[in-house]
Amino acid sequence: MKNDNLEKVKAKLKQKFGKRFTTNKTILERHGKDEAYYPLAPPDGVVFPQSTNEVRDIVLTCSDYSIPIIPFGVGTSLEGGIGALKGGISIDFSEMKKILEINQLDMDCTVEAGVTRKELGLQLKDTGLFFSVDPGADATIGGMAATSASGTNAVRYGTMRNNVMGLKVVMANGEIINTGGRARKSSAGYDLTRIFVGSEGTLGIITEITLKLYGNPANISAAVCQFDNLEDSVNSVIESLLSGVPLARIELLDEVQMEACINYSKLNEFSPKPTLFFEFHGTENEISEQTKTIQEITREYGGANFIWKNLPEERNRLWEARHNAYYAALALKPGCEAWSSDVCVPITSLSDCIIESKEKLKEMNLQAPLVGHVGDGNFHLLYLIEPGDQEQFKKAKSHNKWMVEKAIDLGGTCTGEHGIGYGKAEFLAKEVGSSIKLMKGIKHAFDPKGLLNPGKLFV
Amino acid sequence: MKNDNLEKVKAKLKQKFGKRFTTNKTILERHGKDEAYYPLAPPDGVVFPQSTNEVRDIVLTCSDYSIPIIPFGVGTSLEGGIGALKGGISIDFSEMKKILEINQLDMDCTVEAGVTRKELGLQLKDTGLFFSVDPGADATIGGMAATSASGTNAVRYGTMRNNVMGLKVVMANGEIINTGGRARKSSAGYDLTRIFVGSEGTLGIITEITLKLYGNPANISAAVCQFDNLEDSVNSVIESLLSGVPLARIELLDEVQMEACINYSKLNEFSPKPTLFFEFHGTENEISEQTKTIQEITREYGGANFIWKNLPEERNRLWEARHNAYYAALALKPGCEAWSSDVCVPITSLSDCIIESKEKLKEMNLQAPLVGHVGDGNFHLLYLIEPGDQEQFKKAKSHNKWMVEKAIDLGGTCTGEHGIGYGKAEFLAKEVGSSIKLMKGIKHAFDPKGLLNPGKLFV
Repeated sequence: MKNDNLEKVKAKLKQKFGKRFTTNKTILERHGKDEAYYPLAPPDGVVFPQSTNEVRDIVLTCSDYSIPIIPFGVGTSLEGGIGALKGGISIDFSEMKKILEINQLDMDCTVEAGVTRKELGLQLKDTGLFFSVDPGADATIGGMAATSASGTNAVRYGTMRNNVMGLKVVMANGEIINTGGRARKSSAGYDLTRIFVGSEGTLGIITEITLKLYGNPANISAAVCQFDNLEDSVNSVIESLLSGVPLARIELLDEVQMEACINYSKLNEFSPKPTLFFEFHGTENEISEQTKTIQEITREYGGANFIWKNLPEERNRLWEARHNAYYAALALKPGCEAWSSDVCVPITSLSDCIIESKEKLKEMNLQAPLVGHVGDGNFHLLYLIEPGDQEQFKKAKSHNKWMVEKAIDLGGTCTGEHGIGYGKAEFLAKEVGSSIKLMKGIKHAFDPKGLLNPGKLFV
Repeated sequence: MKNDNLEKVKAKLKQKFGKRFTTNKTILERHGKDEAYYPLAPPDGVVFPQSTNEVRDIVLTCSDYSIPIIPFGVGTSLEGGIGALKGGISIDFSEMKKILEINQLDMDCTVEAGVTRKELGLQLKDTGLFFSVDPGADATIGGMAATSASGTNAVRYGTMRNNVMGLKVVMANGEIINTGGRARKSSAGYDLTRIFVGSEGTLGIITEITLKLYGNPANISAAVCQFDNLEDSVNSVIESLLSGVPLARIELLDEVQMEACINYSKLNEFSPKPTLFFEFHGTENEISEQTKTIQEITREYGGANFIWKNLPEERNRLWEARHNAYYAALALKPGCEAWSSDVCVPITSLSDCIIESKEKLKEMNLQAPLVGHVGDGNFHLLYLIEPGDQEQFKKAKSHNKWMVEKAIDLGGTCTGEHGIGYGKAEFLAKEVGSSIKLMKGIKHAFDPKGLLNPGKLFV
């Protein structure tokens, strides 16, 4: 029966979309696995719509035959979010890349879901504006909205939740709705926009996104400061936040990650120690003021080698090293696979949480360099695992479970920015307690047949 | 039958709460009218719980007998939000005023719903931290969360949506749930916190709120600049926002409001012209840098008399005048009643929207001074109406309707910060279009019997 339905859907999509619908095995596999370690779960077909109306047609076709629908950006999710756990049709947004509006003076823009953050950045290049949210991957804006992504700029400019102003969404029943708008704030009814942001394709298919933009800072400066121990580095972060200095970025790399970066990116002027990378935005005088304050604070906590990088090429070298942290880590153990954790805790719990997690790594004989968006209390351990080493993999899973539970006990969250996918469904239930029933109530109200990205978020 | 049920609920509440339950007519009336013009709609009883568990008991008692429940802070809502349109029990939070936690280093706090923003401010006084959201009234934090309030600081620090980190909520079925947490960001499932923020008591009863706090700025400075016409003042706001200067406040007063303030608050150094009030936060050098940039921008747009106010007493005098704008406006027409509009539009539409609205005021022979949180595109006209003058009242309503529809057409919203209550239910439906069905779906999922603040939000 199900297969019969599936064949009908495939035939209809083939008829309507021609070459833009495929069941090519390589393409199916490409759509069945993200950047995480979860096993391949390919969809039964992939379709490449070019408009919201086409997305609606796909949703209606699938819904008529009760076939699951999985939205797909570029597949850089980290918790299995795009896997077709129950089969179905993957909607690939790579042919929906229009920048629909850039409103320079209002500092907002509206884009189709398939535009990636770097593509948007290029389009904004001559406008004097920038879009602030910068996850590691060059993800699509649709995927970033669906996951409530953030990155290194969140400490000053916020996450997707703070920067998505409105959405166009295709609902499970094929209805096309608009949420939010272009006003900078509103008290008009329930905040539907923020229910869809972070809903990971389970409540509706996001096809267009209106984003807040920011004026390019007059100047940008970076600085690096190294510490003998991790606790001091985190304490100087707390003090820096309290100082009110509007830090644009504040990133921690532990001694393991720093060693990897020194080797990989030739940061020979630095030592393998816990290290903070700062970025400052403002006028020249503002920046000099900000760096002065931060330098005083870091010095108080034993920070040494506070090195400014004012020239763009020096700054870029630093941030490129930071962005390449993942590859630098991989190079520590050539041929290994990496898997990233993502807890986020209140900032005063951060150093305890990190230190205990690192001790436990040692006990368990696991290798996992650390990078952290420490201004938000968010950090990632990159578990490095030999391919096929099931024992190490199990140990990493067990370490992650322990750490997530610790983060939740500390008032934190199992995911700062990667989302739940299906890898963290059990942790979501633990974290939100009885609220999970409310979440399921919303899911049921929005998608009564349960066809949108099934198997995600909920155990 | 209903009355029978009501009597049973009253008896049970009397028995449980003793003197903390009342049907005293004066108190009922006090709970049946907010600061807007809507007719008195008193509840059948008022109860003063002292804990979340007591709120749960009240909700369960009312729910058992299908009696409506209306949460009440201090009654400063502006769209009829607290009226007992279908009778029922008002839950007054004035005995839930505990500050439960202030986490100085994490820069957050948790308070009971009945704490007012000024009470919280006092408690924070010696912590080096402040809570940023400042609506005109000394509203309760619970009420502010329920309405998604904002105020003059939103341009830099955001609205309640950006500053509520977590909530404790009593659901319609008596369940007590926690949403969000103390992590600065999270991608864990649907954002329930932001569904309750702005839900105006229709989805659950908020009993505790966890708030983001900010470090006190090292220095604060204010400035005033006057313009010959409104368009230039708004254009200089746009340019200021684009410049990336992190303005703490940017408020517009039109020539009518300015004249009222000059008279009421003796601001004799100023003229009755469109006027911008600025506030700057930062170190001394940062502020001098910021003011320099803004002064250059305003000068470019013909702004004159850019007057700095660095001394605290001078600055306070200015902001007191701004905060007393409401009373200053009332004094223009002694004995009159005032009613505040609240549209918010993309900022490039702001000057057109304001200018057309003012022309229409003139045509209709209405008096309505204007204040605006112009950095957000939000402004208020204060319609001044002789008590009992039905014709003027009708004209004001018609003007407001015209203006709201214009704002919606411009991509804006019918309410920037006052909420929907029942005064704007028809506009909400117009603004969100078919999304209203989704909102009703959420309402039904959360409150299937429709007992929570009935008659609000939806027509």
